[in-house]
Amino acid sequence: MTEIRKRIRIGVIGGSKPGQEARETAFEVGRLIAENGAILVCGGLSGVMEAASRGAKKAGGLTVGILPGNNPSDANLYIDIPIATGMGYSRNSLVAMNSDILIAINGEYGTLSEIAYGIIYGRKVIGLGTWDIQGVIPAESAATAVKLALGSLENP
Amino acid sequence: MTEIRKRIRIGVIGGSKPGQEARETAFEVGRLIAENGAILVCGGLSGVMEAASRGAKKAGGLTVGILPGNNPSDANLYIDIPIATGMGYSRNSLVAMNSDILIAINGEYGTLSEIAYGIIYGRKVIGLGTWDIQGVIPAESAATAVKLALGSLENP
Amino acid sequence: MTEIRKRIRIGVIGGSKPGQEARETAFEVGRLIAENGAILVCGGLSGVMEAASRGAKKAGGLTVGILPGNNPSDANLYIDIPIATGMGYSRNSLVAMNSDILIAINGEYGTLSEIAYGIIYGRKVIGLGTWDIQGVIPAESAATAVKLALGSLENP
Amino acid sequence: MTEIRKRIRIGVIGGSKPGQEARETAFEVGRLIAENGAILVCGGLSGVMEAASRGAKKAGGLTVGILPGNNPSDANLYIDIPIATGMGYSRNSLVAMNSDILIAINGEYGTLSEIAYGIIYGRKVIGLGTWDIQGVIPAESAATAVKLALGSLENP
Repeated sequence: MTEIRKRIRIGVIGGSKPGQEARETAFEVGRLIAENGAILVCGGLSGVMEAASRGAKKAGGLTVGILPGNNPSDANLYIDIPIATGMGYSRNSLVAMNSDILIAINGEYGTLSEIAYGIIYGRKVIGLGTWDIQGVIPAESAATAVKLALGSLENP
Repeated sequence: MTEIRKRIRIGVIGGSKPGQEARETAFEVGRLIAENGAILVCGGLSGVMEAASRGAKKAGGLTVGILPGNNPSDANLYIDIPIATGMGYSRNSLVAMNSDILIAINGEYGTLSEIAYGIIYGRKVIGLGTWDIQGVIPAESAATAVKLALGSLENP
Repeated sequence: MTEIRKRIRIGVIGGSKPGQEARETAFEVGRLIAENGAILVCGGLSGVMEAASRGAKKAGGLTVGILPGNNPSDANLYIDIPIATGMGYSRNSLVAMNSDILIAINGEYGTLSEIAYGIIYGRKVIGLGTWDIQGVIPAESAATAVKLALGSLENP
Repeated sequence: MTEIRKRIRIGVIGGSKPGQEARETAFEVGRLIAENGAILVCGGLSGVMEAASRGAKKAGGLTVGILPGNNPSDANLYIDIPIATGMGYSRNSLVAMNSDILIAINGEYGTLSEIAYGIIYGRKVIGLGTWDIQGVIPAESAATAVKLALGSLENP
C-alpha cells in the first residue's frame, strides 16, 4: 500500500457561511489535521470547507474536496485533489463515506445530512458548535477535536 | 400535462424497523394520502415504507419507491413504480427531491438525512414521533399530518 | 404484487435533437409500448424521449421519466412519473437500470452511454437507426422493435 | 492554487480483465503519465486500472481511484487517493468528469460508457486497442498516447 494511502483521512464538515469564530476554528482544525499527518477531506467549497483547507495547506498537508458540481475547478484554492461529482447535495454522502472520522463545525442542514451519513457509515462524528444530535461527540476546541479524532482512530 | 402528473406527491420517510405503533401510523398516513388523491413516494423498502405503501394501495393509490439497490424487484410488494438507483444511502436525497412535502414517522439516521435533504430542497417536513429538529413541523396523528401536508400545498 | 408492478418496463433511449423520421419512429414505438400494456421508461426530456412519451400517452399508457436535473417539473408534458435525480448525465445509468429491455432510436453519445449500461446490466438493447455496436440487436421498424422486445421478455 | 492542483489529470480507462499485452501497455501509460508530472485518475480496481496505477507509482506519481463500492479500501494497492462513491457503474461518469483527457486501453462495455461520458464532457479520448468509436483518437503505443494527451492539453 502506498505511503499516502496509509494516512488517516479526516472529514471536516460545516456550513458555507460560518461566522468569524467558526472560520478560525476550521482553520485551526485543518492545520492540526495536516500537522498530524492526516489527509483533510471536505466538500471543497467555501466557508468552513475553505478555512479548513487553508489551514491544512498552511501546514503542508494534503486536501481532498468532493464537489457538488461537475467542474473540478469549482473547488476552493486550497484543495489539492478536487473530485467533481455532478450530484449536487447528494454528494454529502460521499464526503462522509471517504472520511475515517468526521469533525463537524457549525453548519446548517447540509452539515446535518453529513452528520447523519457519518453515523450511518459507522464513522465517529466530533462536533464543534454544531448540531446537538445524539451520536455527535462534543469537543471544546479545535485541538481537542483533532486529538479526539486521532485517538479514536488509533484506539477504536 | 397528464392527469397523473398533476397529482401531489407526498414523501413518507421513516425507519425500516419501527415499532407496532409507528407501523400503524404509517399505514394510516399512506391510506389517507391515497384517499386524498396524492401519490405516495418513499424509499421502497420495509418498515415505515412498507406500511405506508400498503396503506396507500389498500385505498387504491399510486406508490413510488426509490430504492438504494440496483434491482427494481427489491421493492416491497406494495410499490407500483420501483426506481432502482444503485446509489445506496445516497438515494435518500432523491426521496426528498421527488416529494412535494415530507411526512417523517419515527426513524433513525437515514430518516434524519432525508429530513435534512427535505429542508435543503425547500420542502416542508411534518413529523410524527420522529427527530425533534428545528424545521420539522410536529403533528399529533396521521390524520393531522396528512391534513397539514395537503393544506400547506394548497395554500403555500 | 400490484397490477402496475407486474407490467413490463421498456426503456426508450435516444437523442434530444432527432430528425423528423426518428421522432416519428419514437412516437410509434411509444404508442406500441402502451398498446401492449407495457410501461415506457425514458430520460424524461425532449426529442426521442418526448416523442415516445407522447406516443405512449396517446395510447393511454404509463410513462416514467428519469431526469438529470433536480426538478421534477423539468420533465416533458407527456411524463406521468418524473423522477428527478440531480445527477446530470450520470442518470443515464438509472434509465438502463430501470428498464427490462431498451429500444435505442438514433442518438449520440448520451445514447451510447445508455446502450453500454443496458448491456452491463444484462438488458437486451434493440436498435433503430442508432449506434452500430456489438450487442445491439438491429430492428427495421418501430413495430419490429417492440415485437422483438416483448417477445424476448416473454421467452428470454 | 496549490502545486498539486496545477497538475494535469489523465484518466486511464479499460477493462478489469485485459490480456497480458493490454496490461503491459497500461503499465507503460501509467509510468509515462507520472514521469511527465501528471496525475493518474482511474476506476481504482483491477486489470488496466491496476496496471496503470502500478506504472504510475513505479515512477513516483500520484494516483486517484474513483470506486464503484462504498469502501475506500476496495482500491488496488497502487491507488494513493481512493474515492468511494457507492454508486456502482454510475461512477463511470465521475471518472470521465475528473480527467482532463482520457486514454482508453482495451476494455468492454464499462469502458464504452466512460468513452461516451468523456466525449459528453468535452474531453478528448485517445484509444489503444479499444472501441473503434467515432470521436476516439487512435494511438499506436503507450508513448504516442501519452504524448498526444499532453500535447493536446498544452495546445488545445
